[in-house]
Amino acid sequence: MLVFCEISGTIRNLNNCLILLSSLSASQYLLEGKKLIDEGIVSLLPQGKVYPESIHEAMSYSLLAGGKRLRPILVMAASEAVGGDRHSVLPFAVAAEMIHTYTLIHDDLPALDNDDLRRGKPTNHKVFGEAIAILAGDALLTQAFIIMTRAVGMENIQPDCILKATHEMACALGSTGMIGGQVVDLESEGKPITKETLEYIHIYKTGFLIRACIRCGGILSQANASQLSSLSRFGAHIGLAFQIIDDVLDVTGDQERLGKDIGSDLTKDKATYPALYGLEESKRKAEELVGDGIDCLKEFDGRADPLREIARFFVQRTF
Amino acid sequence: MLVFCEISGTIRNLNNCLILLSSLSASQYLLEGKKLIDEGIVSLLPQGKVYPESIHEAMSYSLLAGGKRLRPILVMAASEAVGGDRHSVLPFAVAAEMIHTYTLIHDDLPALDNDDLRRGKPTNHKVFGEAIAILAGDALLTQAFIIMTRAVGMENIQPDCILKATHEMACALGSTGMIGGQVVDLESEGKPITKETLEYIHIYKTGFLIRACIRCGGILSQANASQLSSLSRFGAHIGLAFQIIDDVLDVTGDQERLGKDIGSDLTKDKATYPALYGLEESKRKAEELVGDGIDCLKEFDGRADPLREIARFFVQRTF
Repeated sequence: MLVFCEISGTIRNLNNCLILLSSLSASQYLLEGKKLIDEGIVSLLPQGKVYPESIHEAMSYSLLAGGKRLRPILVMAASEAVGGDRHSVLPFAVAAEMIHTYTLIHDDLPALDNDDLRRGKPTNHKVFGEAIAILAGDALLTQAFIIMTRAVGMENIQPDCILKATHEMACALGSTGMIGGQVVDLESEGKPITKETLEYIHIYKTGFLIRACIRCGGILSQANASQLSSLSRFGAHIGLAFQIIDDVLDVTGDQERLGKDIGSDLTKDKATYPALYGLEESKRKAEELVGDGIDCLKEFDGRADPLREIARFFVQRTF
Repeated sequence: MLVFCEISGTIRNLNNCLILLSSLSASQYLLEGKKLIDEGIVSLLPQGKVYPESIHEAMSYSLLAGGKRLRPILVMAASEAVGGDRHSVLPFAVAAEMIHTYTLIHDDLPALDNDDLRRGKPTNHKVFGEAIAILAGDALLTQAFIIMTRAVGMENIQPDCILKATHEMACALGSTGMIGGQVVDLESEGKPITKETLEYIHIYKTGFLIRACIRCGGILSQANASQLSSLSRFGAHIGLAFQIIDDVLDVTGDQERLGKDIGSDLTKDKATYPALYGLEESKRKAEELVGDGIDCLKEFDGRADPLREIARFFVQRTF
């Protein structure tokens, strides 16, 4: 579809495109999305020799260290699900990846998770020192807001939709959102916690950003109230499923493929789904969540197939 | 004026108000502004027993530790200078104070300036620990964007003006703005630096946020291009003057009144204006900058008097 659109210059027959798209495998869709995002990052980040160089090197280092780009791809897929065009929301999607990277850099800091390895490379503070790592996280969050609130690349989207989506994203990241989850995660280390608290941590720390990406894609492409509500419920389900599988992979995954230390949750005495429910029950829960999430998309036609496929990928992934 | 406006319910005679206002002393204006902002903070921050409590306590602690509230007052004064109403931009002004507080919390961290005292109280990480202090800074920056992009309290302002102002603020804070200044400041510690580098640090680390506050006040209240250009130049001048006086007060100020360690720049081997130019020349430079800044406001009538008065206060202040 990407090639078709690029050749035609405009989307002449959207329905044909979508039939083509729905037959693509999830991996093909993810691969194309990742390519788009990687190119977008390069064009939307102050790069190379911009003064002061150290901070820009640190920002690029973590942002270009790889990653599946799932969150920005969800922004684009949700936009397409309601009839939007993924290129129209590309800057916003890139911003979502910058936000994700900021959370990883700050999470890895010695005062927080104290991780040495991320995406197969030394963590940001290991390379650039703690001070620059803190500022690189700050700068990536800020750069995301610079991009989200800049009209460039999103000329077809109404200012009030951009404002609403930016607000949505900010709310998901705040002290009663993602940061709330980080705090409870931090304060629960080494303590016995209830299943409810574990669910809170997973939903807030991981699920909120995933749901926000999906909602923002919808908002930017003028989803109606019913569509937005369905996207919300879909996002809530697959957001939690994603983190449960993350816990599972921390036990069963391949270190090289995952690019981070295996068993690190256990080492840090962090509560996880496998620890509380067992491995098999955790996988079953994740599969059930994804199934229920996909059921929330009943009102959407084939244009939501990428969302459905990504959801299935969430539980099948091995990295 | 505040009492008059509150009694009348609406501003019936704006010009009368402004004549009244222009006769008020800067300290009276600042006092009223501070009261408005303090009330705004209480209403716009998740407070008290909101879960998780630790992060909200940490956010409130630094935000309610005092402070002159100069940056948010500049947002309001710039809005009034172009015919706006300070109450209409109050949420945005409160957001500016949250941003300022986030920069202080992160700046004080052990990995950065490693300061123990701020506004006369132990710094955030001294009370809540490093992890919560990092997250409290993140959360305040995020809360600021939540507020800036939320229509509540700014219903009279067009979405495209809010979007433009939010973008302006984000740009001022990023890696080629304030964070750039922090990085160069950090990397210059203990090294001989040129006057040009010192000016870069002061303009970027301090001046950019001050100028952005003034520009945002103008943008939100529909300043025309000429007004915005004048406000910009005014902001650039007084932003630098403010930091020069900060350097001067680090040498000559009263510790109790300033609420932070005196001579800390010297201890940390930081370059300052007094160190490079001497005390008297630094004061002269600051006065000259303020004079030139006020000259930039020639096209404005008495409605810009609060801006002029605040500028004069910048060089006369002792705390």
